[in-house]
Amino acid sequence: MLEPGDEAVGRWVRERGAPAVVRRLRSAGQPLPGVSGKRWAGLRSRAERGDPHRDLAVAREAGVRFVCPGTAEWPRQLDDLGDARPLGLWVRGPADLRMWALRSVAVVGARACTPYGAHMAATLSAGLAERGWVVVSGGAYGIDGAAHRGALGSGGATVAVLACGVDRPYPRGHTGLITRIAEQGLVIGELPPGDHPTQSRFIVRNRVIAGLTRGTVVVEAAHRSGSLVTVRAARRLGRHTMGVPGPATSGLSAGVHELLRQDAVLVTDAAEVVELVGGMGELAPERRGPVLPRDLLEPAARRVLAALPGRGAASPDEVARGAQTTPDDAVARLYELRALGYVERHGDGWKLTRQAVIPAER
Amino acid sequence: MLEPGDEAVGRWVRERGAPAVVRRLRSAGQPLPGVSGKRWAGLRSRAERGDPHRDLAVAREAGVRFVCPGTAEWPRQLDDLGDARPLGLWVRGPADLRMWALRSVAVVGARACTPYGAHMAATLSAGLAERGWVVVSGGAYGIDGAAHRGALGSGGATVAVLACGVDRPYPRGHTGLITRIAEQGLVIGELPPGDHPTQSRFIVRNRVIAGLTRGTVVVEAAHRSGSLVTVRAARRLGRHTMGVPGPATSGLSAGVHELLRQDAVLVTDAAEVVELVGGMGELAPERRGPVLPRDLLEPAARRVLAALPGRGAASPDEVARGAQTTPDDAVARLYELRALGYVERHGDGWKLTRQAVIPAER
Repeated sequence: MLEPGDEAVGRWVRERGAPAVVRRLRSAGQPLPGVSGKRWAGLRSRAERGDPHRDLAVAREAGVRFVCPGTAEWPRQLDDLGDARPLGLWVRGPADLRMWALRSVAVVGARACTPYGAHMAATLSAGLAERGWVVVSGGAYGIDGAAHRGALGSGGATVAVLACGVDRPYPRGHTGLITRIAEQGLVIGELPPGDHPTQSRFIVRNRVIAGLTRGTVVVEAAHRSGSLVTVRAARRLGRHTMGVPGPATSGLSAGVHELLRQDAVLVTDAAEVVELVGGMGELAPERRGPVLPRDLLEPAARRVLAALPGRGAASPDEVARGAQTTPDDAVARLYELRALGYVERHGDGWKLTRQAVIPAER
Repeated sequence: MLEPGDEAVGRWVRERGAPAVVRRLRSAGQPLPGVSGKRWAGLRSRAERGDPHRDLAVAREAGVRFVCPGTAEWPRQLDDLGDARPLGLWVRGPADLRMWALRSVAVVGARACTPYGAHMAATLSAGLAERGWVVVSGGAYGIDGAAHRGALGSGGATVAVLACGVDRPYPRGHTGLITRIAEQGLVIGELPPGDHPTQSRFIVRNRVIAGLTRGTVVVEAAHRSGSLVTVRAARRLGRHTMGVPGPATSGLSAGVHELLRQDAVLVTDAAEVVELVGGMGELAPERRGPVLPRDLLEPAARRVLAALPGRGAASPDEVARGAQTTPDDAVARLYELRALGYVERHGDGWKLTRQAVIPAER
């Protein structure tokens, strides 16, 4: 109902609360302080056209939920965006957004990528997924699509952040891919059901990708590419920024090389990405205890945890059978349990971490 | 007569002077302090086999001079090597080594390079030469050869640092190239005429390449490549270290990417190299006056300086005609004059710098 990323509106909502701002916009009242009459008229006309109740009804019908700041599923790292924080996110898919985003990396890049770029995005994302990391991207052609497919292909977790309504796959050619992501991962966005993407919405969307993740990897990007917006946003937010090198003769690597000449870190495989974003926890996972006691886990997650063997690894299919659920749901829960320190992914299998085993054996 | 890079010998020479060390080695005297009997016997047998007078006579015959520390042509930055400083350098070619080395960059890399690597080495070196920089490399197949050829091809200056006698082109297949470098540039090395290269001599030679230049660029290098030795030596000596990125899928870029993940600077063209090694002088050349008054220039250099037009640029051929010398000699002098701040290279032409023009007009 309001355009995403509007910091003035974000400030009013923070200061006055969303209901008060909506009431003021819909009344014939005075403009809020510091807003020109023209701008106020524009905001009012948008507010009048908006119909949140209809949006929520359409969303529910399409299996889409609305996640607000302050609720259990809200990824709190998005609060780092300040007044540019999304007013909420529309979410489609079986996983818990907050849990998944805790251990996520953005893999982004050019739409018109080269075969080399597509190969690197897919390989990197498959490797990240194999190490239990969630791959976040924008669902676009080129690098984004290769990243999502790489993660899905290795049975991993992936999140597509769209610049349009999440019930409306964009681009059209990615309808199948985005549907698959919604089944096996998450499709999220700030725009209500039915909304179209625009050029400025793509740019504004990029801050969500940057803010949600621990770091952003750019695989291929020309000078002045939109992917560089995501990396700059990540840098401003204190997230890790990374780039995959390519031939110096390739215009599609020129933007990446520019970043690497600044402060981005050169990465050539998933291990190097995880080394950076994983921090201490990744290098020495045995030193950290689980964050949450088992009793506080949701019943579905507890069933999946119980389905894991005391020793060795199990495939998602085996876990799904043991927990009496679908493999997609099992994978979603396994990634949540991973974020909580209970399980680790090893290649195709999942196993209990040492901390998860020891209390159970005592 | 003694193996290059031996720091114990270097220390004795520094403390006692070369003649005293040679006398001691050739007498039946006691070993120098801290040397085992076996090591001393090895050094003595080498010293007995050596024949400096014959070496100097053979060298003179082949147009090779011997440049010692403390003499006018000695590149003083090699003193940074401490006790590993060469005892002297055999030099073949028309240019002044000290002058040329003042504005030089090393371009090194794999012997078995890819076409991409050869292209980058040649383009980078041509660009450096066009900007008046001297390209230093090791004369080997692959990246080294492409670097030398790139500099020569754009009428520029290049120095080959060999791991064998400078009268003995190695590798054999580069006989033509090394002969051309000796005519148009400089071929230098620590080994006396006739000496063969060995594996350890290649490694030890690399410190000379690193020490002579303001920075080292690695174009392609596998993990554990010899070129990485040169870069590590450059880093220890406080020189700039640079790397050209390549596909992350290429094993021949893996060593370069490893350096770029440490502290080497990513470069994709000659302008980026010069931006780094040029320092203040390169960014603002008009602020620095010439180092040397015209009266102190050698007569040959003074003639070349006088042959340059008061306005605009002249080609090396035009300068050679005006100075009544060969084009190769004219280029050698132009690079010396450039090191002294008198002239600049612009594409194919050379012109007086502003400092050189203004005093002449007054």
